[in-house]
Amino acid sequence: MTAKLLALYKKPSDTEAFDEHYFKTHVPLVEKMPGLLDVTLQRIMGSPMGESPYYLLAEMTFDSMESLQAAMGSDEGRAAGKDLMGFAGQLVQMMFTQPINTQAPAEVS
Amino acid sequence: MTAKLLALYKKPSDTEAFDEHYFKTHVPLVEKMPGLLDVTLQRIMGSPMGESPYYLLAEMTFDSMESLQAAMGSDEGRAAGKDLMGFAGQLVQMMFTQPINTQAPAEVS
Repeated sequence: MTAKLLALYKKPSDTEAFDEHYFKTHVPLVEKMPGLLDVTLQRIMGSPMGESPYYLLAEMTFDSMESLQAAMGSDEGRAAGKDLMGFAGQLVQMMFTQPINTQAPAEVS
Repeated sequence: MTAKLLALYKKPSDTEAFDEHYFKTHVPLVEKMPGLLDVTLQRIMGSPMGESPYYLLAEMTFDSMESLQAAMGSDEGRAAGKDLMGFAGQLVQMMFTQPINTQAPAEVS
């Protein structure tokens, strides 16, 4: 089963400086992680209550939780993690996730 | 440009009761929202620091922010919203998002 590493960022005080570092330095480091199948980025535009405290959601897909863990422990993963802590350590919440399939119950007899 | 409605749930005290209501009652109400293109659900399994305060992430895709807003204001959207507030009002954070495309700059001349 695929697994994802999610990074949910709160809104930084300087969004321009954040974006500059994020897109030019951080994303290229993330893209070097071994076993990474896909990265999707979403900008948080607001919420039903108006402004959202959140700014950006990154979803990094791996073919399994084991691949995800191996990628995080690799040299490339540790470089990306170190960079992350430097520019967004106070802003980011990381999560490990797995898909929930509501369409086809996984009952194989 | 597509737009998503995200619902990020904190871990409920009774996960079994939450899942029972979520999958049997709430998801079917959400799936009736007009203009909804796709729903994906992820279970949050943990974080690099161990346990995560989060439990589940739902992503609902629409073909535009206008469609998303129209769906939320529809009878079906308001029924889903009322149900949500009843069983998870204290647990859920909603966000409106749009994709960030890092591969192909949207410069059309």
